[in-house]
Amino acid sequence: MAQTRRKKRPDNLKLVLTAIAESRPEAASAILLHLHPADIGKLLEAIPPAQRHTVWALVEPARAGEVLLEVSEAVRADLIREMDDVELVTAARALDIDDIADLIPDLSDEVIAEILFAMDKQDRQRLDAVLSYAEDTAGGLMNVDTVTVREHITLEVVIRYLRQRGELPEHTNRLFVVDRGDRLLGALSLSRILTADPQQRVSQVMERDLIKFSAPAPDKDVADAFERYNLVTAPVVDENDRLLGRITVDDVVDVIREEADRTVMARAGLSEEEDIFAPVARSTRNRALWLGINLLTAFIASWVIAQFEQTIEKVVALAVLMPIVASMGGNAGTQTLTIVIRGIALGQIGGVNAAKVLSKELSVALLNGLIWSLVVGAVAFAAYGTYQLGLIIGAAMIINLAAAALAGVVLPLAIRRFGVDPAVAGTVMLTTVTDVVGFFAFLGLATLFLL
Amino acid sequence: MAQTRRKKRPDNLKLVLTAIAESRPEAASAILLHLHPADIGKLLEAIPPAQRHTVWALVEPARAGEVLLEVSEAVRADLIREMDDVELVTAARALDIDDIADLIPDLSDEVIAEILFAMDKQDRQRLDAVLSYAEDTAGGLMNVDTVTVREHITLEVVIRYLRQRGELPEHTNRLFVVDRGDRLLGALSLSRILTADPQQRVSQVMERDLIKFSAPAPDKDVADAFERYNLVTAPVVDENDRLLGRITVDDVVDVIREEADRTVMARAGLSEEEDIFAPVARSTRNRALWLGINLLTAFIASWVIAQFEQTIEKVVALAVLMPIVASMGGNAGTQTLTIVIRGIALGQIGGVNAAKVLSKELSVALLNGLIWSLVVGAVAFAAYGTYQLGLIIGAAMIINLAAAALAGVVLPLAIRRFGVDPAVAGTVMLTTVTDVVGFFAFLGLATLFLL
Repeated sequence: MAQTRRKKRPDNLKLVLTAIAESRPEAASAILLHLHPADIGKLLEAIPPAQRHTVWALVEPARAGEVLLEVSEAVRADLIREMDDVELVTAARALDIDDIADLIPDLSDEVIAEILFAMDKQDRQRLDAVLSYAEDTAGGLMNVDTVTVREHITLEVVIRYLRQRGELPEHTNRLFVVDRGDRLLGALSLSRILTADPQQRVSQVMERDLIKFSAPAPDKDVADAFERYNLVTAPVVDENDRLLGRITVDDVVDVIREEADRTVMARAGLSEEEDIFAPVARSTRNRALWLGINLLTAFIASWVIAQFEQTIEKVVALAVLMPIVASMGGNAGTQTLTIVIRGIALGQIGGVNAAKVLSKELSVALLNGLIWSLVVGAVAFAAYGTYQLGLIIGAAMIINLAAAALAGVVLPLAIRRFGVDPAVAGTVMLTTVTDVVGFFAFLGLATLFLL
Repeated sequence: MAQTRRKKRPDNLKLVLTAIAESRPEAASAILLHLHPADIGKLLEAIPPAQRHTVWALVEPARAGEVLLEVSEAVRADLIREMDDVELVTAARALDIDDIADLIPDLSDEVIAEILFAMDKQDRQRLDAVLSYAEDTAGGLMNVDTVTVREHITLEVVIRYLRQRGELPEHTNRLFVVDRGDRLLGALSLSRILTADPQQRVSQVMERDLIKFSAPAPDKDVADAFERYNLVTAPVVDENDRLLGRITVDDVVDVIREEADRTVMARAGLSEEEDIFAPVARSTRNRALWLGINLLTAFIASWVIAQFEQTIEKVVALAVLMPIVASMGGNAGTQTLTIVIRGIALGQIGGVNAAKVLSKELSVALLNGLIWSLVVGAVAFAAYGTYQLGLIIGAAMIINLAAAALAGVVLPLAIRRFGVDPAVAGTVMLTTVTDVVGFFAFLGLATLFLL
């Protein structure tokens, strides 16, 4: 029957937990044995630490490495704490070089030394090469298992070589063509090898115009290029155009997911590694800073209100209505901010057209301000029976929506200049603006015209 | 030199625009001719409609189809409006069947009829097959250009067949093995064909345990499986396990990006197709509904405040301090909400562990509530010199943070039950809760203990 394996997972989770609860660990082990490492990883992430450690003890050491690669960093650190050095070395030795590199930051010096000791010289050099690049660069993403050929040989010779060599690394859709000095000349797709005349030479059929990455290129650029040009693999080269390795699409998919995740989490002031079962103390600390920053901005808004205490004392309706003005500004501004941040990320908004975007957003803000200030004004008039109050709240709302549009366009562009991610700081700064302008405009106009 | 083509793009945008501004359309055309369709798409998305139409007129009709596939739906509709029927038919005829299917919803009946008329019968049937599935399903995602072989032939025969056939469809990393009735038996990777003994039969070397999708499977499940199992291609089958087509990773990458984009946009009440240069009237309409919903929730909060008008009249400091209580609740609640929505999406939060998540979030809320209520209480005491005010605002904040944690866990789980995306409705409903509870707790306690 047509299916995805994924559908089986919830049952497996239950089956494993039931087997453990009924003290039948061998039954749980048997189920785990048949699961994909990615599925074991998801299962471990979905259960609280105590149960997680019980299940983890049942995973075979030889597969443990693959599972560690699939879980979030917080869960990975938790699982590694549960393993002794022998288990860690066993787990690592079952992995590819680039995967070992991903685990290294979480391992103790002793374990790393033991892993290196168990490797041959070539692998040690390869591991060194991968480790010399930051995780979020093309070099950090690459695999070092490229298969290379020379340009003057015929496809027939290539095929003989491949048969002799045996199995190709996962996700090999093309071989890379290099010269004696390892300089990248082109790529030869497997499908070309299979369909072209075997008497042709590599140089005659290879693709020369390659999209390639320098090792220090940011992983975000790699992901954009893979998405834009529909790549499955791409070569990574050094400053002399020598082939260092290749990036495969499965790793790029992870980059894209993580990036999206980071954006969503950052907007709420959360780190993307916040684990749902992290200890209460750690989560409290992680989130406290953000709440503290927000408290500061709330104090600023309060200070603005405090300047108008006497006005509020005389017309208490202002206290009732003022959150409306601030809230509408915050919401309209968030819409503009979201669109502008997205436009920046997609490369749609640069210096050239920022002015056009601003004028559009201001127009939208004024129109929506007009529409909703009529509604709010009417409601205020109906509730309090003074048309002045309606006029004042309407005017304050239009002013605040215009300020929101301005801040929504200008803030992310300005924040980016300082090298800060607009997704993190943007919302806090924007709502500070809309609170301050909202309260000031509404209470200020009221002080001028109502008293 | 190592580079990504992407780096060239900003220059190209400027070059094209300069050439047009200087009335040298042939220079602009020459640049466009050398750009990848994806880059032309990005360029068109980054300029306002008037300039966009000028540039669009310079893109060759034969490449126009590929460019249309690369742009957002709003821009695509805009570009199609600029084309006459002959141009549209030319553009569509240069595309693969599954790509034509993606354009169909934007085309007029006359154009569709002409495209169908120009096709042979087999292609028309294939197009029908693709169109019979919704865009956001495995069937809607699939290509119909699978290459199939039978299981009893040798690899040598497979290679002969491939040489005769010539070029393989893009992203072919494996052939599918089917029986006479087109039922899927397995898959044969190109790398296996190249490395295994050519005398072996397909049945001896093919992979039998395939991850496959039924045509109506949601694209989100497809994306999850591709990510989890590191797939490059996967077969799509009908209810009788007959091969219908295959899904390739490049289309899945688009699904992942769009899904992430939709989440971020939905949180601000925006449709993911909001174009930065959409007409002001359309954008105003798109966003007005969301602002209207927010206005309703703001009215609810105001109504709560209005119940305490007499209290505020006597202690105007309450009006100054009350936004702090509401704002801290909103921020803490958004953090919980974000983590829970993410946990649900990753399949980490189900019925079993929701209670554990709730108890953890409540603990974090109480701890953070304690910490920050001490700060706020101290500030309130310092500002107004009455310790009662400090105690009351501290207590109100702890109550509101607990309510925020409760709402942050319960709301998304409840909303999902009703088949609504928690990312859309979650934030509005949450801040309604934290505003109402915040104002009610603070002003209520003040009425009880201060008057």
